[in-house]
Amino acid sequence: MEEQEISVKRVYRFGNNSADGNTDMKPLLGGKGANLAEMTRIGLPVPPGFTITTDVCTEYHTLGKEQIKKLLRAEVREGVKFIEEIMGAEYGNMDSPLLLSVRSGARDSMPGMMDTVLDIGLNDEMVEGLSKKSGKPHFAWDSYRRFIQMYGNVVMKVNNYRSGDKDLFEEILEEVKSSKGVETDQELTTEDLKGLVDRYKQAILELTEIEFPQDPVTQIWNSIIAVFESWHTPRAIVYRRLNNIPEEWGTAVNVQAMVYGNMGRSSASGVCFTRDAATGENIFNGEYLIDAQGEDVVAGIRTPHQISLEGSRRWAALAKVSEEERKKSYASLEESMPSLYQELLSIQQNLEDHFRNMQDIEFTIEEGKLWILQTRNGKRTGEAMVRIGIEMLDEGMIDAPTLIKRIDPNKIEELLHPVFDKEELASAVPIAKGLPASPGAASGRIVFYSDDALEWKNKGEQIILVRVETSPEDLAGMDAAEGILTSRGGMTSHAAVVARGMGKCCISGAGALIVDSEKRTMTTDGQVYREGDWISMDGSKGNVYVGRLKTQQADISGNLGRLVELADTHSKMKVHANADTPETADIARKFGAEGIGLCRTEHMFFEGERIKAMREMILADNETGRRAALEKLLPIQRADFEGILETMQGFPVTIRLLDPPLHEFLPQDEASQTDLATTMGIDVDRLIEKIEQLKEINPMLGHRGCRLGNTYPEITEMQARAIIEAAMNLKDKGVKTLPEIMIPLIGSEEEFKMQKDVVTRVTETVFLERKDRIDYKIGTMIEVPRAALTADRIAKHAEFFSFGTNDLTQMTFGFSRDDAAKFLPIYTQNGILEQDPFQILDQDGVGQLVRMGTDKGRLSRHNLVVGICGEHGGEPQSVDFCHHVGMNYVSCSPYRVPIAKLAAAKANLLSYRPS
Amino acid sequence: MEEQEISVKRVYRFGNNSADGNTDMKPLLGGKGANLAEMTRIGLPVPPGFTITTDVCTEYHTLGKEQIKKLLRAEVREGVKFIEEIMGAEYGNMDSPLLLSVRSGARDSMPGMMDTVLDIGLNDEMVEGLSKKSGKPHFAWDSYRRFIQMYGNVVMKVNNYRSGDKDLFEEILEEVKSSKGVETDQELTTEDLKGLVDRYKQAILELTEIEFPQDPVTQIWNSIIAVFESWHTPRAIVYRRLNNIPEEWGTAVNVQAMVYGNMGRSSASGVCFTRDAATGENIFNGEYLIDAQGEDVVAGIRTPHQISLEGSRRWAALAKVSEEERKKSYASLEESMPSLYQELLSIQQNLEDHFRNMQDIEFTIEEGKLWILQTRNGKRTGEAMVRIGIEMLDEGMIDAPTLIKRIDPNKIEELLHPVFDKEELASAVPIAKGLPASPGAASGRIVFYSDDALEWKNKGEQIILVRVETSPEDLAGMDAAEGILTSRGGMTSHAAVVARGMGKCCISGAGALIVDSEKRTMTTDGQVYREGDWISMDGSKGNVYVGRLKTQQADISGNLGRLVELADTHSKMKVHANADTPETADIARKFGAEGIGLCRTEHMFFEGERIKAMREMILADNETGRRAALEKLLPIQRADFEGILETMQGFPVTIRLLDPPLHEFLPQDEASQTDLATTMGIDVDRLIEKIEQLKEINPMLGHRGCRLGNTYPEITEMQARAIIEAAMNLKDKGVKTLPEIMIPLIGSEEEFKMQKDVVTRVTETVFLERKDRIDYKIGTMIEVPRAALTADRIAKHAEFFSFGTNDLTQMTFGFSRDDAAKFLPIYTQNGILEQDPFQILDQDGVGQLVRMGTDKGRLSRHNLVVGICGEHGGEPQSVDFCHHVGMNYVSCSPYRVPIAKLAAAKANLLSYRPS
Repeated sequence: MEEQEISVKRVYRFGNNSADGNTDMKPLLGGKGANLAEMTRIGLPVPPGFTITTDVCTEYHTLGKEQIKKLLRAEVREGVKFIEEIMGAEYGNMDSPLLLSVRSGARDSMPGMMDTVLDIGLNDEMVEGLSKKSGKPHFAWDSYRRFIQMYGNVVMKVNNYRSGDKDLFEEILEEVKSSKGVETDQELTTEDLKGLVDRYKQAILELTEIEFPQDPVTQIWNSIIAVFESWHTPRAIVYRRLNNIPEEWGTAVNVQAMVYGNMGRSSASGVCFTRDAATGENIFNGEYLIDAQGEDVVAGIRTPHQISLEGSRRWAALAKVSEEERKKSYASLEESMPSLYQELLSIQQNLEDHFRNMQDIEFTIEEGKLWILQTRNGKRTGEAMVRIGIEMLDEGMIDAPTLIKRIDPNKIEELLHPVFDKEELASAVPIAKGLPASPGAASGRIVFYSDDALEWKNKGEQIILVRVETSPEDLAGMDAAEGILTSRGGMTSHAAVVARGMGKCCISGAGALIVDSEKRTMTTDGQVYREGDWISMDGSKGNVYVGRLKTQQADISGNLGRLVELADTHSKMKVHANADTPETADIARKFGAEGIGLCRTEHMFFEGERIKAMREMILADNETGRRAALEKLLPIQRADFEGILETMQGFPVTIRLLDPPLHEFLPQDEASQTDLATTMGIDVDRLIEKIEQLKEINPMLGHRGCRLGNTYPEITEMQARAIIEAAMNLKDKGVKTLPEIMIPLIGSEEEFKMQKDVVTRVTETVFLERKDRIDYKIGTMIEVPRAALTADRIAKHAEFFSFGTNDLTQMTFGFSRDDAAKFLPIYTQNGILEQDPFQILDQDGVGQLVRMGTDKGRLSRHNLVVGICGEHGGEPQSVDFCHHVGMNYVSCSPYRVPIAKLAAAKANLLSYRPS
Repeated sequence: MEEQEISVKRVYRFGNNSADGNTDMKPLLGGKGANLAEMTRIGLPVPPGFTITTDVCTEYHTLGKEQIKKLLRAEVREGVKFIEEIMGAEYGNMDSPLLLSVRSGARDSMPGMMDTVLDIGLNDEMVEGLSKKSGKPHFAWDSYRRFIQMYGNVVMKVNNYRSGDKDLFEEILEEVKSSKGVETDQELTTEDLKGLVDRYKQAILELTEIEFPQDPVTQIWNSIIAVFESWHTPRAIVYRRLNNIPEEWGTAVNVQAMVYGNMGRSSASGVCFTRDAATGENIFNGEYLIDAQGEDVVAGIRTPHQISLEGSRRWAALAKVSEEERKKSYASLEESMPSLYQELLSIQQNLEDHFRNMQDIEFTIEEGKLWILQTRNGKRTGEAMVRIGIEMLDEGMIDAPTLIKRIDPNKIEELLHPVFDKEELASAVPIAKGLPASPGAASGRIVFYSDDALEWKNKGEQIILVRVETSPEDLAGMDAAEGILTSRGGMTSHAAVVARGMGKCCISGAGALIVDSEKRTMTTDGQVYREGDWISMDGSKGNVYVGRLKTQQADISGNLGRLVELADTHSKMKVHANADTPETADIARKFGAEGIGLCRTEHMFFEGERIKAMREMILADNETGRRAALEKLLPIQRADFEGILETMQGFPVTIRLLDPPLHEFLPQDEASQTDLATTMGIDVDRLIEKIEQLKEINPMLGHRGCRLGNTYPEITEMQARAIIEAAMNLKDKGVKTLPEIMIPLIGSEEEFKMQKDVVTRVTETVFLERKDRIDYKIGTMIEVPRAALTADRIAKHAEFFSFGTNDLTQMTFGFSRDDAAKFLPIYTQNGILEQDPFQILDQDGVGQLVRMGTDKGRLSRHNLVVGICGEHGGEPQSVDFCHHVGMNYVSCSPYRVPIAKLAAAKANLLSYRPS
């Protein structure tokens, strides 16, 4: 034990331009501690202090409090002495009091998860010393009152001794303020504060039966221990589990001299950024307040001033403040403390150059002296992330791999959907809120039925389809609409999934809306909206607005375009898009898709005349009847495929054969049923009976996918013919196509073989008829667990695999997406599931099947092309997994193509250390 | 090539008490060929012949016809000469014609799959020679006509040259008979037959443009080749695939001298058995006909006579034929040909002793000479199988392992369910037919509603519940009924599955029945049956009878009891039963179950008052409301568990917590809904709304299983308390219990942990309350694919696994049992699936997960107890798989326990070669 005390360094000091640690020691010193050391090293004015290592946190949890104090005592004592010397003050000396702060600091930031205690060292004597030395008794007593409050909460945990949600100290503070007839803390007099301190101490004693400790040494030790303890609070444990932070990392503890920005007119506190966090513009900016603590700058009680003169003027213009008024009441730091501003300006440049990233810096000016309290990489919008990255690349600060590795692909999304004009949005008030089911902005006139949607659209109107919830019958209407708004359903409801696929703005589950389709009204807050009324919706936020807000279209020109190009050169995987129409395919191309990974043929059956032929086919009593109806569908499908294949010329287009249960195509309400029966000249009762017969108890596991083609091969024949004839027509026109026929829902080798035989027979017939041939591929979706388990057999016949991870997730978990809303939110809340597996691929379970399917498939066919076409194909964590599994491509919604490309490049760059 | 011709023996001869082959050479000579050789060897009068080996079949498909003829020529020539010498006749010699047969014979019997040609060697000349030599022109011409017909079909494949289903030769035969005004073939005169032969030859020439070959050498070669070819017909390929017979096995070809039982009064043909194939009685029996060919004995045109005198007398008594009439018209072989009978008697004994198994023997007597054509192990009923096995064991003919290995466990089923009295059944005519959904026999009065069933039952009546289809609401009624009859639904419908679980007779999908529950009538064939009418039903055959047939109860005493005991001593796995009530548990014990592997708690909630409390719980708006209702359910559940645990004292009882979606418990029809609303004092609209809310699109993948317990932990708490309190009450009474709490539908480690925490908290509370403890286990069902994939993690917390292969099959295939009827029959018919995976465990796919789950589970917990409780637990092939996976037990319906025990023993005995 003695030996260990000597040999292990547990405390790392920083101050006066030198430090024991540096920025690379984050595992040992935590992020905060390592950066404090680094800043000190490069000569910045950091309040001196020391960091107790993360290893000590681990030791603490093994050895306990007394043992750890014994191990630390000498080093902490020396650390405090080190601070005292630099600050010219003494901890626990009333005449020249030094106050300390204790802050946690884990390797990765765990915002708000762990504890901080400030103003440590104050007691009944020291508060008088501070009063005297600062000449500010109100400041001293307010600091003491704050310290007791923090210490009482963090160290003594007074609120654990009582029930109810309210904080003990806030309660007392409210009482005192109300008895004094004042509204804000600032209005309390020094005497009031003294009384408050007494009441605080009294309350602590009553509740805990322990006196608030007057001994500064006890205070500092207990504060340090409290930080170690905070590593093991339930909320910290849950946070770590959700963020994959190992238990054994532990937190460091930073002990630092207190500095004060609220010591009068020559003191100030502020926050600044080396570049604009909203736009990415390379301009130094930030906010500060004179005679204030750091928390006052962000609290919103006083309006913070801008740091630079330019910033201040910009702000004044927006806030409509005159130059005179600005100078008088909102002067910039550049104006009020010009030399300190210059010092800060040089420090921020220094910091950005040093860390090669945009910095978010906290500073305090104590009686004319500038202190840097913290620096870290600044959070930023997607727009700023892209601009800063590209500009730093151009400035030679970083290289392309560094740039890509720093990108958060999810943030790209903000740049890819239409958005509302910012000014219009600023004044708009939401009339309802729902789930942000599919991002983007849209305005249009309200319609309640799919048919109406088409009618209005044909009249040249922009429309928003409003439904309680949508069904496949609404597809044509959804397609015609600018956006879809539903009062029911979750993030994975029919409306949400289809809209995302279409790249269309959607808000689902806007529960406050009462949609009465029959009356064609939508009511919220007592206000009734009718068919034809204009509304606007922000699918990224879930907000519905009344009226027509202006929108701006997105594109991938400029910085984003350059970033995506860079991603392409650093990726192993290609990115395809899911698209069912030439229009969507065109958008996919514009966003850089190098193929269509999933073209769903069923959506093609919903428009106008087609649905009639489709329904005839479904309702036919025998093969002859089905064939007659399929004859009518053939030219329609062929034209569809020609459109999409022509748009994607030169790129592969994976066309999935008919997948959904047939009853989805049939009308469900009485009126449409009567209508259909009349059109088809059959008895309505017969029709209803047939519809009933087609209903299934678990349609997800029912008569769908290749089970349709294997029971009604004539459907497969028609679709295969339509695809091949389309491709041959285009060949005649000189257009190069790469059609890939994908058989859905395969569960066994035989199932695939039977369908492949049908397709091959048809294509060979067409080749004979045309006296020409084309190349095409035939493969399958892997979406049934059994397909992954027997992938080696299936791959003997299939030329490509595309993982349909939506269905695969449903079957592997046994979760119906349509029904999971009853328990999935509770599961993610309680930590039973770390994340929604329909949004982020479950690597532990579903991922095993994906890996197994890929490996087994390539065992039989080494050049098997493998991709993914579930919703996960555009989700960065899942894309990373796909890269590691060795997929050839991912396919996703057109709007997510750039995101997927960046995720793919990032996965590739992070998967090995470049030489 | 020359060398090969010399060194490889391709033809094996048999005749005159010696043979080149023997019974152990089945792979080379086929089953038939090996046994013909063996019989010849042991001195039996077998028509001489030779066998071309199965290897030649394989060679043929590589080398082709000409090459193979070259390779075979010398040996075949010698083989024919060998036959000629023994028979004293010459192939192709008109004066002393020898005729040959050519028969296929694979290693395993492939009944009806491959081809046979008889009477080979006849042509326009030879038919005259045969006429002269036999003195029977009609016989000779009839043989010639049959030969052309067979040769034309098998070798020349005339029907391939024409469309339509009808056979060319049958068509011509019909024409001739109708032009002659006769009804049977026998009535045709010799002249008619000559005319027929001409027409046959003419038709062949016209169709195929090839003459029917007159050359006997061509005839024999083409016949041999045709048999090789028949190995590759589509039907043979499909048959092999379905029966796992490798392509490369090939078929042997047996060429043999023809012998004739239709050469007059001193000739005969017959079939006999060494023991009674129906009852197993050790008595020689069989049938024969004088002046007849073998096919006449089974054709049913003439009534065959019994072989033994005793058999003949028994038959006469049953057929009500007087002794005088019997002697005159139906004399036994023992009477008509006493010395030949004695010869046959001695031969049959010889054969049974030699093969140590009951033999099925074909013989022909040609003009006073007995020929044995074939012997094989005789097919038998389940009853005969058991009796013969046990008696042979007692006689010292076989040992116990041999006995068990010979048992077909599926056949045991016949012995385990009640059956109708045979005499009554003989005269009963079915009024409807459905699927044999759950075996057994039952009689009762018709009722149409569950409530009525209980009412009638309480009045002491036996009842049959008749429904269109059943739902969980009908459980109480099903339980009260003797049998369940539905007009809709398949082998895996709710009615079928539940009835099998209850061991109750059930017929499902009796489509011809029109069930009108409101009118309380059931109509079939225009006949109306009403509530209270008696019907009887045979669940093993799917027949419904009018009136009340007598039944006999099954037990496992006597031979079956001894067999099951033997099985126990030769098994590695235990057999448990699925049982939800003390009554079923009692039956399970009687059938030898050594535990309850699945006790479903949901069925307990359906009776009388319980369902009300259950519904209150489900419809409660909050936890408080649920807890109030659960309070009422607690004593009821506790009493249930006490009952079942007491019945199973000393044996483990695995109790599964609540599993089905809650809406299954709610009333679905308007009347019951109104009723419930009134009882509960709530608004009926509110009730209907709640029921609607609980409905799910895919309930199988919805809010059920542990998802209920994880969202409403109070349900788990109540059930855990009921189980533990029940066990402790029994402990106080001195009853030893082994309760095992099983959490259903687990998909992740966390899901299990959360439920285990709830259970542990409750049990520890009960232990504290009672100041006592008991042992119990907590484990899970593995029924979600993800559970098998992550079994290593789950097993860290679970003490046992029970594979729920019903649900696991549903999710692994993505097949809903309720809906699969739309495609599963087509899939099994077309060979896409070899068998229904809900009946026989899919080893290739689902089996991978079962094996993975078991192996991974034991990796974390080496002593993990693993079992299966799906319907597969009582299915022999699946039990065999479970043995090989290394399970500790299988659990099945009580009535299948003996079957599972035999399957388990057989799997164990077959899995290694005993020293």
